[in-house]
Amino acid sequence: MDFILRLGAVAAALAAAATMGTSDQTLPFFTQFFQFEASYDSFTTFQFFVITMALVGGYLVLSLPFSVVAIIRPHAAGPRLFLIILDTVFLTLATASAASAAAIVYLAHNGNQDSNWLAICNQFGDFCAQTSSAVVASFVAVVVLVLLVVMSALALGKR
Amino acid sequence: MDFILRLGAVAAALAAAATMGTSDQTLPFFTQFFQFEASYDSFTTFQFFVITMALVGGYLVLSLPFSVVAIIRPHAAGPRLFLIILDTVFLTLATASAASAAAIVYLAHNGNQDSNWLAICNQFGDFCAQTSSAVVASFVAVVVLVLLVVMSALALGKR
Repeated sequence: MDFILRLGAVAAALAAAATMGTSDQTLPFFTQFFQFEASYDSFTTFQFFVITMALVGGYLVLSLPFSVVAIIRPHAAGPRLFLIILDTVFLTLATASAASAAAIVYLAHNGNQDSNWLAICNQFGDFCAQTSSAVVASFVAVVVLVLLVVMSALALGKR
Repeated sequence: MDFILRLGAVAAALAAAATMGTSDQTLPFFTQFFQFEASYDSFTTFQFFVITMALVGGYLVLSLPFSVVAIIRPHAAGPRLFLIILDTVFLTLATASAASAAAIVYLAHNGNQDSNWLAICNQFGDFCAQTSSAVVASFVAVVVLVLLVVMSALALGKR
């Protein structure tokens, strides 16, 4: 179960990184006020998102052997402790990048009147759709990581 | 140790909520393009921040008795499991609000050229300073919560 959830989290994290990393839209027309291209590296937050999600995906791949060891030897505390501590750290990292990207995506969709930031999704529809799905995938990874930490804690408690 | 860290996290979370909740600045002059008032409820993300940080602070206060029970009875797994699972959930909540508020504060400081969002901190200096310190306080709470989860895991593993 731990192993399968971990595989799911790997898929979600890498999908999020890849979707965000390939987001790029050039507009076919000219307007007076807007630039003509939007890509993930226009936004520092989205760059952070791609790097963090790739890191989380890489960590989860490397954690698979430890998960196997924890399943084979359910009474050894070492591998479980190792997994729960690193899972918590990477959960925090994944949550931080997912939430900050979500804040930017929300702004892109709705804008903000008081600071005079206009919504850009009318212009950059495809870009917005792609970054939104990356954010959704990253939240799937976050939920799976929370489940992994809770399951590891329960397994440690039962011992 | 668990108890003292928890008290620190309570202070950090409530300070973050209070600092953000009282952020409000009205400009003494008129300009053509900008509104004249900025407060935390101009931004959905900051509203979310105040609510979540208050929730996290409230949970941490309620968790203090369980922390005492876990210290008095170090061999009982129940209270420790209860604490580690809820700590993980509230850690995720706190990280999400801290990171999304940080993304908005970063935009307020630096703006974003490609989407034509201008930095507003030149106009709203006090507002920016206050929201920035709220974000710093919330990250202190996040770090303390990570430490609490790791310490609970180690205590569970030692049993």
